Amino acid sequence: MKNPPSLDQLIAALKVLPGVGPKSAQRMAFHLLQKDRGGADKLARALDHALLNLRHCQRCHTFSESPLCNVCADAERRQDLLCVVEMPADLLMLEQTRCYDGLYFVLMGRLSPMDGIGPKDIDLEKLIARAVDGVVQEVIIATNFTAEGEVTAHLISEMLQAHGLRVSRIARGMPVGGELENVDPGTLAQAMYERRSVS
Amino acid sequence: MKNPPSLDQLIAALKVLPGVGPKSAQRMAFHLLQKDRGGADKLARALDHALLNLRHCQRCHTFSESPLCNVCADAERRQDLLCVVEMPADLLMLEQTRCYDGLYFVLMGRLSPMDGIGPKDIDLEKLIARAVDGVVQEVIIATNFTAEGEVTAHLISEMLQAHGLRVSRIARGMPVGGELENVDPGTLAQAMYERRSVS
Ligand SMILES: [Zn+2]
Ligand SMILES: [Zn+2]
Repeated sequence: MKNPPSLDQLIAALKVLPGVGPKSAQRMAFHLLQKDRGGADKLARALDHALLNLRHCQRCHTFSESPLCNVCADAERRQDLLCVVEMPADLLMLEQTRCYDGLYFVLMGRLSPMDGIGPKDIDLEKLIARAVDGVVQEVIIATNFTAEGEVTAHLISEMLQAHGLRVSRIARGMPVGGELENVDPGTLAQAMYERRSVS
Repeated sequence: MKNPPSLDQLIAALKVLPGVGPKSAQRMAFHLLQKDRGGADKLARALDHALLNLRHCQRCHTFSESPLCNVCADAERRQDLLCVVEMPADLLMLEQTRCYDGLYFVLMGRLSPMDGIGPKDIDLEKLIARAVDGVVQEVIIATNFTAEGEVTAHLISEMLQAHGLRVSRIARGMPVGGELENVDPGTLAQAMYERRSVS
């Protein structure tokens, strides 16, 4: 006696989700099949829809349904400021503070030597190409203040300065080890206003 | 600036999974879109396939791709013994012990007054109808030894005994508060052999 193949396949497929092991995959599968078939169908449709419609913005690399995201397509934004963040959620957090009207570049990750994530795994060359367009005057680095975010900020600073760009880092207004996503907008706005030039 | 709709829809859809809140849904969505599009597609297909192909076995109520599951369809199994378990995983655990050759009934849940899960939410009438077929001589209750499993066992015992059936409970060979799923097969086999008649 074994599970029916389609049940085993579903349990295995749920394990692709980060943080989901065999036990919770099984619990999830039972829950969906037994208690929430509508939700399971909605999830399948949402996955298909997202895979089909979401791409990366050509300029800033965040998720977008169109070639350019809303921020990059907005001619009113200051074109001479470029803010580098790790993830799309960080971009949204900064937008919520309403203290920044420049453009963004989303790394879609961070350097993490411990996890084997090196410079080639986050698209730094695309960032350089974007930053040296002649219009950008200042690059503001807003990676997290975690060890990994700081390592990332350090490397990016050096690379951009080597290209003659002015680089700044948002002020350490937030707790050491804190992540942008978990900080209140006021603190984050303060950190943006107090950004310091990288010497 | 907001997330693209298809990203928000995916994040919302992932929250149908038990134990997944807004933050982990977002982390899961980013992971799938950024790191594992193949896995996301596999998950969507597995959900569709499971929704389409998995039903409940007509006799024991476990998940099955055919009208009768392998156990119920097996004429070699003892037809006079019926073992009641909470979930399909419990049935699989008992099968692994190879100590039981009767049939099963899977409640697909347990009574949980605290969570508002009463007798009507687990299909007890279907169990009664199954148990009074005139062939079943003994019903072995193998719900978990948690508070909820014990409440369930108690109610089922009374209902079945009221129908003149012989009811037994697998022996408390496992730790109090333990769940079948987490116990080693040897202990579980012992509990099966030492089942006692409910007086
Ligand atoms: Zn963009
Ligand atoms: Zn069956």
